[in-house]
Amino acid sequence: VLAGGDRIAVSTDTLVEGVDFLRTWSAPAEVGAKLVAQNLADIAAMGALPLALVVSLVAPADLPLEWAVDVAGGIDEECRRAGAAMAGGDVSVGPVVVLTGTALGLLQGPPLLRSGASPGDVVALAGRTGPSAAGLALLTAAGSRDAAEATGPASLVRAHVAPRPGYTAGPEAARAGATALIDTSDGLLRDAGRLAGASGVRIDLDLAALQPEEDLALAAAALSDPDAARRWVLTGGEDHALLGCFPPGVALPASFRPVGRVLPAEQGARVLVDGAAWDGADGWHHFSRAEPRA
Amino acid sequence: VLAGGDRIAVSTDTLVEGVDFLRTWSAPAEVGAKLVAQNLADIAAMGALPLALVVSLVAPADLPLEWAVDVAGGIDEECRRAGAAMAGGDVSVGPVVVLTGTALGLLQGPPLLRSGASPGDVVALAGRTGPSAAGLALLTAAGSRDAAEATGPASLVRAHVAPRPGYTAGPEAARAGATALIDTSDGLLRDAGRLAGASGVRIDLDLAALQPEEDLALAAAALSDPDAARRWVLTGGEDHALLGCFPPGVALPASFRPVGRVLPAEQGARVLVDGAAWDGADGWHHFSRAEPRA
Repeated sequence: VLAGGDRIAVSTDTLVEGVDFLRTWSAPAEVGAKLVAQNLADIAAMGALPLALVVSLVAPADLPLEWAVDVAGGIDEECRRAGAAMAGGDVSVGPVVVLTGTALGLLQGPPLLRSGASPGDVVALAGRTGPSAAGLALLTAAGSRDAAEATGPASLVRAHVAPRPGYTAGPEAARAGATALIDTSDGLLRDAGRLAGASGVRIDLDLAALQPEEDLALAAAALSDPDAARRWVLTGGEDHALLGCFPPGVALPASFRPVGRVLPAEQGARVLVDGAAWDGADGWHHFSRAEPRA
Repeated sequence: VLAGGDRIAVSTDTLVEGVDFLRTWSAPAEVGAKLVAQNLADIAAMGALPLALVVSLVAPADLPLEWAVDVAGGIDEECRRAGAAMAGGDVSVGPVVVLTGTALGLLQGPPLLRSGASPGDVVALAGRTGPSAAGLALLTAAGSRDAAEATGPASLVRAHVAPRPGYTAGPEAARAGATALIDTSDGLLRDAGRLAGASGVRIDLDLAALQPEEDLALAAAALSDPDAARRWVLTGGEDHALLGCFPPGVALPASFRPVGRVLPAEQGARVLVDGAAWDGADGWHHFSRAEPRA
């Protein structure tokens, strides 16, 4: 959305109890931080600077007041980390907790879209993919927060319940001349496919640039699922890493590292890994988020 | 919220199925219109011109797609009537329908607050209060939409399920020099009390200027509740009429009519009716909205 002489980006995203979080697995401040991350990462993905967030809370009548106060504290803290203001909201009553954030950002120029990539562009990633999915797998296998952190690494569990993405990579990409940018909220392959579809191109990812880090390998080993680490990197959502495309020869911002290249459109898969279609899952679809993942 | 060089007003409000509407009583397009009315009336109450609305929909997995499409149609239609753009949104899954709107408006100057009223100001109302509460009473008594409309007047039932406030009265009040403005979303007495509290004044309403109109009297008679019509006018919420204060001698905008005056603060009631404290209910409190009114 562009408003007036200054250009304002707007984005909205919702967390539903039992679908996007469990009160037994997440502290309220973590739920608040996650709401901020989801909303402000979308703003960053447009190349905009986070400006403000408004929040609507739907709460069961028996929700402890302290829980709501702690959610607000988590929202406020993560907004401050992002340089945004928590600018008020609304409280209603309903059967489960529903938190809707709407974020405003200040565009530095034209908004960065998904549709501007051209063949020859470098594909680059800011942030990591995989930790949130690994944390969810640890929680699901262990059944409780304490047991999941004991399985470890505990930092992956925390990455799931309260991702803390960088919010400056988006505006940095815009200033560096990125042609397209997307928040990998639904997984690297899936969101790369969206960007490729919107731009009318194909994206070829380098598997060597997407090797799972040590912590993901540890979690996969702990879960006796050796293929999991790579799967989390390629398909895990909710880390809010940013995937961008840059003209060849452009100096990438320090927050980005090259992970592939843009190819002309052809029949067949929109996203390749080392030149071939990937035969694994491509990340969760929006409506598969319907089924409680917990 | 003020953003950048242009001044942007932001407001958010939520409708929860079973609390704020019933799918058996409201057509989906009406629920959409109500969401727009709640959000844009708050923008108007700041003296801002409605600019855009983003919407988050939480929907049960078995919600008919057609219902969601029709909600969007109702949102779009009421946004157009208000001169605002429906600027996208987000869809999630949850146990009941939850619709959160976040509205942006363009301020024409400093935002109109609740806190600027001074003793001597004229208190004026744009729009009617009472129809929504009367419509709800008809629905509650009759138990179904058809039976409620048959009891009638049917226009009151429609005013409850889909209020259609004027959105230009707020900016008009700002241009005319209003000192304070509030959306009477929780009832005239209650919101007058909020304005009086924020401004550190008392408000004295003229009962003669707040006589129930014919349609309210008809509904009260149909429900064999002769006092209801006056009660709806004074305490019924969700009509989104705007209550404003204007310096004495200012020509009121055509959308406003005088209904009282601002008095200096004193001990006791913040809001008077014909100089005396009103002994009836003062409109619903926010958390009484928790209990399904249906």
